[in-house]
Amino acid sequence: MNAVILSTGDELVLGQTVDTNSAWLSAQLSACGVMTLYHKTVGDDLESVAEAILEGAGVADLIILTGGLGPTADDITREALARVMNAPLKLHKPSLMRIHRFFKKINRSCPAVNDVQAMCPRGADLLDNDWGTAPGLGARIGKAKFFAFPGVPYEMKRMFPRYILPLLTGNTGRTILTESIVTFGAGESMVASRLGDIMRRDRNPLVGTTVSEGIITVRIRSEGNSVVESKRMLIATVKDVEKRLGKLVIGRDGASLPVALGELLKRRHMMVATAESCTGGLVAKMLTDVPGSSEWYRGGWVVYSNALKETQLAVPAKLLAKHGAVSEPVVRAMAEGALAVSGADYAVATTGIAGPGGGSPRKPVGTVWIALAVPADGGTTVTSQVVTFPGERETIRGYAAKTALNMLRLHLLSDQP
Amino acid sequence: MNAVILSTGDELVLGQTVDTNSAWLSAQLSACGVMTLYHKTVGDDLESVAEAILEGAGVADLIILTGGLGPTADDITREALARVMNAPLKLHKPSLMRIHRFFKKINRSCPAVNDVQAMCPRGADLLDNDWGTAPGLGARIGKAKFFAFPGVPYEMKRMFPRYILPLLTGNTGRTILTESIVTFGAGESMVASRLGDIMRRDRNPLVGTTVSEGIITVRIRSEGNSVVESKRMLIATVKDVEKRLGKLVIGRDGASLPVALGELLKRRHMMVATAESCTGGLVAKMLTDVPGSSEWYRGGWVVYSNALKETQLAVPAKLLAKHGAVSEPVVRAMAEGALAVSGADYAVATTGIAGPGGGSPRKPVGTVWIALAVPADGGTTVTSQVVTFPGERETIRGYAAKTALNMLRLHLLSDQP
Repeated sequence: MNAVILSTGDELVLGQTVDTNSAWLSAQLSACGVMTLYHKTVGDDLESVAEAILEGAGVADLIILTGGLGPTADDITREALARVMNAPLKLHKPSLMRIHRFFKKINRSCPAVNDVQAMCPRGADLLDNDWGTAPGLGARIGKAKFFAFPGVPYEMKRMFPRYILPLLTGNTGRTILTESIVTFGAGESMVASRLGDIMRRDRNPLVGTTVSEGIITVRIRSEGNSVVESKRMLIATVKDVEKRLGKLVIGRDGASLPVALGELLKRRHMMVATAESCTGGLVAKMLTDVPGSSEWYRGGWVVYSNALKETQLAVPAKLLAKHGAVSEPVVRAMAEGALAVSGADYAVATTGIAGPGGGSPRKPVGTVWIALAVPADGGTTVTSQVVTFPGERETIRGYAAKTALNMLRLHLLSDQP
Repeated sequence: MNAVILSTGDELVLGQTVDTNSAWLSAQLSACGVMTLYHKTVGDDLESVAEAILEGAGVADLIILTGGLGPTADDITREALARVMNAPLKLHKPSLMRIHRFFKKINRSCPAVNDVQAMCPRGADLLDNDWGTAPGLGARIGKAKFFAFPGVPYEMKRMFPRYILPLLTGNTGRTILTESIVTFGAGESMVASRLGDIMRRDRNPLVGTTVSEGIITVRIRSEGNSVVESKRMLIATVKDVEKRLGKLVIGRDGASLPVALGELLKRRHMMVATAESCTGGLVAKMLTDVPGSSEWYRGGWVVYSNALKETQLAVPAKLLAKHGAVSEPVVRAMAEGALAVSGADYAVATTGIAGPGGGSPRKPVGTVWIALAVPADGGTTVTSQVVTFPGERETIRGYAAKTALNMLRLHLLSDQP
C-alpha cells in the first residue's frame, strides 16, 4: 500500500506558513508500513486542488489532503472534490447541527459563514470532527481512497487515528519497519565515517543520515516478507548503529536531549537548575517542554542584565568589569551561584554573543561559554568550555542550549551510580 | 514567471523531518512577484527525483530543488540531474579544491567521501557554496531554469540571493505584490466577520486568512499591470484591513508579538522582567529571540518549584498553601515580586497547568493565570486574568506566553505617552 499526501493553502505556496501536517502524516503512515510516494502542496485554487487529487488517484492507494475545509471563501476543498467526483454539493443536516452544538459548547454563537462546512459532494462522506468546526471528507476516487482533514494540526492529528488507522491493519504485502537513532555531538561526516559500509544504498535495512540544527538522525528502514523477519533485521542494524556511535546516541525515534537528560536525572532523584544569559530562557524552555519536568527541574534565572547576574547569582561585579559578561570566570560564577541559590544538585550556565551585534575580533558572534556546576566533597566542582558556533542568532542559541544540556548528559553518563 | 519548488529526502517523505525550505523559497519568490505553482517532496530515489524534475520542467519557468547534495550515498540529486540531462557526471577540479580549502578553514581534514560533491553532469554548472561543502547545481532543462541547493537551510538561504535573485529582476508581465497583516487576540471567524466582503474570492487584491498557533494572519495579494498600479491597490487594501481590525493588528509581514512589544518598550525607554511558572522560560525565550532585546528586557525567573517562588520573588508561603500555585493571588504576587526585585518598569507573570498531568475539575489542564505589574503613584498596579486554553502542553504554553506578551502590548497601546 502506498500513499500521496496533499496540502492546500495560498499561505503554503506563498511561503507564509510551513506545512508540518504532511511530515506528521507520513510519519504515521510509515510506522504502519505504508510508503509515502510524495508530498504535494498547491494553492487555494479549485483547478489546482482538483488536478492534484486526480494525479494522486492515478498512482496511490490512499490520498490524504489537509486544509481548505474552513468557513471562509478561500476554503475550496469541498468544491474541488465535488468537481473531481462530478457530483453536486449538498447540505448535510446532521453535520450542520453538530457544528451549531460545537459553538454552543465553547459558549460562542455560530457565525452564519460556518454553515458551509456542512456541505458535502453527493457520494462522499462527511467525517465527524469533535475538536473543531470543520468536518473532514471521505470518498473513493477510482481505486484510491481519499480523505480530507482540516489543516489545523490539532484537529487533523485527532481525526487521523479514527479514520485512517483502521484501513491500514495488515494491508501490505511486504512489511516495512523504520527506526531512527538520534545523536548529538558530532558532524554528519564523522557519523557517516563511524557507520562505514552499513550506509551502502543497496543494503537492507537501508541506513541514512539527516542533519537538523546540530542533531544528526540516523534513519533505518527494514523491508521483509513478514513482521518477524523485518523486525529481526531492523533490531540487528539498530544495535550495530548504536554500538558504532556510543555516547553520541541520545536515543531512538523521537528522542531529544531534554527528555534523555530528564530520564537520567529522574533515575538518580536529582534536580537541575539553569542560569542563562545568551540563551535567554531557551534552556529552561527546552527542559519544561517535557511533561513532568517539575520532578527534576527546579527552576532558573534569565540574567540578561549584569545587574541581575550580580544580585541574583552573586556574580562578583569585579569579575564582570575585568573579564566582561562573556567570559570563563563569569560563566563559572553563574553556575556556582545558581547551584547555591536553587539548592539543586546540578546547575548549567550559559553566556555568549548570539548576535547579530555585540561581536568583536577577540569574541566574535557565536562565542559561547558554558559551565556545569556539581556539588563535590566540601565544595563545588565546576567545568566549563567555550565554543564558537556558526550561523545566526537562532542557530547559535539553539546549539548553545543543546550543548549545555549535553554537557550534563555526558557527565551523568560517565558518572554511573 | 512561475516556479516549482522541489525537495528531496527520505527523511521528508518518511515524515522524520519537516521541510521548511520550500516555504522559505516560495516566500522569497513571491516577494519578487514569482508565483509558486506547487511544492513537491520526493524520497532519495533516483527515478522519483528525475521524474519530479521533468514534471516541473513541463509546467514552470524556474525549478528550485533542495537536498540530496551531501557527501553520503543517499544523496542522489547529482545523478538524477545527470539522468534528466542524459549527460555523464564529471569531476570538477576547482570545486574539489574549494571543498578541500573549506575543510582546511574549519580546521578539519576532508573525508574522502566528500570528493563526490565536486561531481557535475556535463553541461550543468557547479555553484559555489561559501558556507558548506556542497556546491549547488545549475542547468537548463528544456525552457526551464533548474537550480539545486543544499538542504541545509543556512547554506540554501545564502545561495538563493546569489544565484536566483539576479534572474528575477523585471521578468514578469503582470506585477504581483503581497502583504500580510499579523493579528492576535481573536478567532478566525471573528476576524473574517470584521473583514466582511473584502474577503470575496473574485476580488483584487485578494484577501485570505490563515491561523497558526493563535496568530491569525491576513494575507493580501495584489495583481496589476505595473508596480505602481499593483502597489496602489495593495496599500489601499492594507489600510482598510488595518482599520477594520484595530488593536488586533500586531504589524505587517513578519511581525511578531515580541518584536512589536520590544518596539513599544524601546520607544518609551522602558524595561520588562518576567516571572514564569507554567511557561517555564518560553516568555523569556520569545523576548530574547529578538536581536537587541537587552535594551528593553532586564531578565527573569523560571520559578518552577514553589521554593523558588518564595525565596526569589517573595511569594508568601501562606498564599501558596491556601490558594495553590495556580491562582490569582500567586500570579499577582509573582508579578509584583519580579517588578520589585528586577527594578524593571513592567513585569509579566504566568502560572498554570500545561498538562498533560496536574489538572482537576476546578482547575482543568489549560488553566493559566497571567498578571501584569506596573508601577503606579506610590505603589504598584497589578492586573490579572485567567484563561482556559485548548490543546496540548505545547499549544497551551504557546498561547499563554503570547497572551502574557499581548497583555503588556495592549497596556502600552492604551497608555500612549
